[in-house]
Amino acid sequence: MAPIAHVERYRMFELNLTGTSAGNPYADVTIQAMFTSQSTGETVTVNGFYRGQGRYSIRFMPTEEGVWTYETRSDAPSMEERKGEIVVEPAGEGNHGRVLRACDVAKGALREAYGAQLPYCFSYEDGTPYQPYGTTCYAWTNQPSDVQDRTVATLAKAPFNKIRMCVFPKYYDFNTTDPEMFAYEGSMAEGFDHTRFNEPFFENLDRRIEQLDELGIEADIILLHPYDKPEWVFSAMGAEADGFYLSYMARRYAAYKNVWWSLANEYDILLPQKPLEDWRRYARIVMANDPFNHLRSVHNCTRMYDYNETWCTHCSIQRIDVTRTTECIADWRREFGKPVVCDEPGYEGNIYWGWGNLTGEELIRRFWEGVMRRGYVTHGETFIDQGEQVWWAHGGELHGDAPARIAFMRDVFADLPLDAAPLDADMPSEFAWSTLLPSGERVPHTPQGEKAGPYWDVPVLRSSDDYQLVYFGWYRPAYREFSLPEGNRYAVDVIDTWGMTIETLPGTYEGSVRVDLGRQYMAVRIRKA
Amino acid sequence: MAPIAHVERYRMFELNLTGTSAGNPYADVTIQAMFTSQSTGETVTVNGFYRGQGRYSIRFMPTEEGVWTYETRSDAPSMEERKGEIVVEPAGEGNHGRVLRACDVAKGALREAYGAQLPYCFSYEDGTPYQPYGTTCYAWTNQPSDVQDRTVATLAKAPFNKIRMCVFPKYYDFNTTDPEMFAYEGSMAEGFDHTRFNEPFFENLDRRIEQLDELGIEADIILLHPYDKPEWVFSAMGAEADGFYLSYMARRYAAYKNVWWSLANEYDILLPQKPLEDWRRYARIVMANDPFNHLRSVHNCTRMYDYNETWCTHCSIQRIDVTRTTECIADWRREFGKPVVCDEPGYEGNIYWGWGNLTGEELIRRFWEGVMRRGYVTHGETFIDQGEQVWWAHGGELHGDAPARIAFMRDVFADLPLDAAPLDADMPSEFAWSTLLPSGERVPHTPQGEKAGPYWDVPVLRSSDDYQLVYFGWYRPAYREFSLPEGNRYAVDVIDTWGMTIETLPGTYEGSVRVDLGRQYMAVRIRKA
Repeated sequence: MAPIAHVERYRMFELNLTGTSAGNPYADVTIQAMFTSQSTGETVTVNGFYRGQGRYSIRFMPTEEGVWTYETRSDAPSMEERKGEIVVEPAGEGNHGRVLRACDVAKGALREAYGAQLPYCFSYEDGTPYQPYGTTCYAWTNQPSDVQDRTVATLAKAPFNKIRMCVFPKYYDFNTTDPEMFAYEGSMAEGFDHTRFNEPFFENLDRRIEQLDELGIEADIILLHPYDKPEWVFSAMGAEADGFYLSYMARRYAAYKNVWWSLANEYDILLPQKPLEDWRRYARIVMANDPFNHLRSVHNCTRMYDYNETWCTHCSIQRIDVTRTTECIADWRREFGKPVVCDEPGYEGNIYWGWGNLTGEELIRRFWEGVMRRGYVTHGETFIDQGEQVWWAHGGELHGDAPARIAFMRDVFADLPLDAAPLDADMPSEFAWSTLLPSGERVPHTPQGEKAGPYWDVPVLRSSDDYQLVYFGWYRPAYREFSLPEGNRYAVDVIDTWGMTIETLPGTYEGSVRVDLGRQYMAVRIRKA
Repeated sequence: MAPIAHVERYRMFELNLTGTSAGNPYADVTIQAMFTSQSTGETVTVNGFYRGQGRYSIRFMPTEEGVWTYETRSDAPSMEERKGEIVVEPAGEGNHGRVLRACDVAKGALREAYGAQLPYCFSYEDGTPYQPYGTTCYAWTNQPSDVQDRTVATLAKAPFNKIRMCVFPKYYDFNTTDPEMFAYEGSMAEGFDHTRFNEPFFENLDRRIEQLDELGIEADIILLHPYDKPEWVFSAMGAEADGFYLSYMARRYAAYKNVWWSLANEYDILLPQKPLEDWRRYARIVMANDPFNHLRSVHNCTRMYDYNETWCTHCSIQRIDVTRTTECIADWRREFGKPVVCDEPGYEGNIYWGWGNLTGEELIRRFWEGVMRRGYVTHGETFIDQGEQVWWAHGGELHGDAPARIAFMRDVFADLPLDAAPLDADMPSEFAWSTLLPSGERVPHTPQGEKAGPYWDVPVLRSSDDYQLVYFGWYRPAYREFSLPEGNRYAVDVIDTWGMTIETLPGTYEGSVRVDLGRQYMAVRIRKA
């Protein structure tokens, strides 16, 4: 028996073992452990991984307090039937466990509190609500170490609680430098051995994911992506090597509570070399090696993925239409019935392409349009004249106007009632297209029928008679009148989403209230007094 | 024989006759004349109309120069077989005749010059290209006379060459005053006689349409609309009275060269009282009484009309999706194969509704997005704190920032090659929606397949190797590089569509050119040097 280990609930317990280094232990040796809770009887089987020089690790994340025992299994006799015990302490301050879907977490009264919004929400596993406000730094862990440190320092002050990040380096405009370390043994000159991983590369990745966790940031790990260099070929290793890698990633990182799996960035650029069936198989490989069942998705370029596939826990969408972006979240919720993250709505910056030269105003408008439809929106920044690093790829520093407004926005939405529902008065994009009936009559393709009512033009969030939030986006009404539910008095806040001010109107109102607005990017919040 | 009359080609010849005033001549007396060109032999039959006090008129617009003779027919013997002759002089300066579809005007080399754009273009009947830059003053001819005069004075300085205007008064927010005159005999107190027209009302309308013609403005006459008052009921007169009115309007106004027919504003609000078959019948009535075959369309609210119906010469569309507005012109061109006017893309102003509280920047962006797709876009203005009149309904004065930019825009597009074609790189709205094949693969609903190439993000107009115009809209690239066709040198203009400047880069370029931009609402024009 090893000495009794103590670990906080939801934090990682790492069992380190020593065994053979003969042959290729990455491929040849299997090692796993069964962890059993002495209070619930639950047993979790966890696959371990090799990390070079005869060292093996098995990483476990206890989801219940109390005593857990474990016992190893291995085809290497020296690592067989190792036994031990861990004592799981209560979760500490700020430790809420994994982010999962609210429908998989919330029970009883909490479940009821979400109402019809349950399928579209995330939650920490301890029941704390979680709304992702992500950012994007694709290749930040492939930059020089000091740049990585600066990225962490920037994130510590930024409003983000999720980050989209690749494992492999990125080769693309502004991304042409080779990284100092690669995921595999070998070299660009001699090629890489896709059956042997480079431990220092992964130790750095371990540390960076830990640092993110300390900052309360979910690591949305992009396992594969197309932006590759002929001397790297990590995007075209073949199905067997892909599977070997995915299995390793899941075994190494599944016990980090802040991990999400994104099978790919822009999977469709990898078609047809990696056909759709590959992605489903890759999802099965990840699931088989992740006993903690982290969130899983995949990200598109111009071809929407079918997020109805059961392995997908949520949508991770790049907007396709260049005009109608996060407004489509209303449609995607209807189509897929899952939490919707618009992970690429365009970035703030001034790169030459339309995906990365939005003003701060426009990116923040897209954030609001999305969150008002109870989806989630992800930030990115692409200034090409603000120093060597471009945040979207390298990390480094932030230069834009959006992050401060995202921080403000998080505050506004922090007390959103869990069941606040978007009025589906705004039309799905296909409304512009209609169906010609045999009678010659055209009918719109919308479940709601006609646009109608006082909120046909703006997104609205409403929770019973208690709460209503209306966002005006690029509109500039001099004023607007709101009807109020009868029998109550209401307090009214005028929110300048760009100016970052909240003005509470004096007194309370009943019947109706006229609110002066007069500029763009305003919102009005009406709460029962 | 009457004295020989002289009239300019395309201008109106009015034959005035005196006859019975007994009974109800509006309904009881038929009067028409056959006009025959002595040079071509063509005969045009024109229905006349009664105008009270025993006066009858027949209005004719000669489309050919030279001598025309005429002869009347009537069931009133005193007006039967009146004969005369008119001499049609050449069209004067600025008189280009009717606006028609280019496909109905252009022959030979001119036809070829339009290339594939022919179905989507308008043209004056003398072959002069016509691009509508319209505005909207729904009830301007129902305002007090001094307001009408001020509207004309404003239009004389404004950049508009088309105006959307109703015949009947409008009852709606900011439109609650009864007009001084009505189209019918009778009164609000005693009701109106839908079989007897009020001549002073129509004489004013005659004069106003003439004034528009003098300013080079097409009168897009909205024959019916839903914004009615219980004491007026012009929107619910019944099918017989509607037909009687439409026939009268066509007989009275078809000889004005600057008339377009819009069967209705927001026809779908008049459903189901006036079902779709009514609109088709109404179109036939107008056509039967308009020997000059003016442009005809109808305008929607939330239900797209089927502009494939053969009586429609063009589309007169109100955007339905509140986000993706004139960008949809690419889709509508594909769907209907006719000239597309987005007659309601939203208005500049600060009214409480989203259709009328755009900034000038946003309205001008919508103009450019539409015209870059070779559609046409119509202006409107709805400031509610700039005096008594609101331009969109009453006329009066303009207060916004858009008109100056529309004037600038007209200049930019004045020398657009007739065959300049939009690159269909931007996707139709349904691209966001895909089809699930039995194989599980999703394919987009777009004829072009994938978004791709260097112009996936921005609209482009291009004419062979000679001309390219690219518009960046709300994007803010620091710079953009353009490949140039081999073997030529090019001149490059940087156009600030909001700042209203055109900066020509020094020298000429071959191979490629990098153009610094750095702010929103920029365009780049590249022409063979």
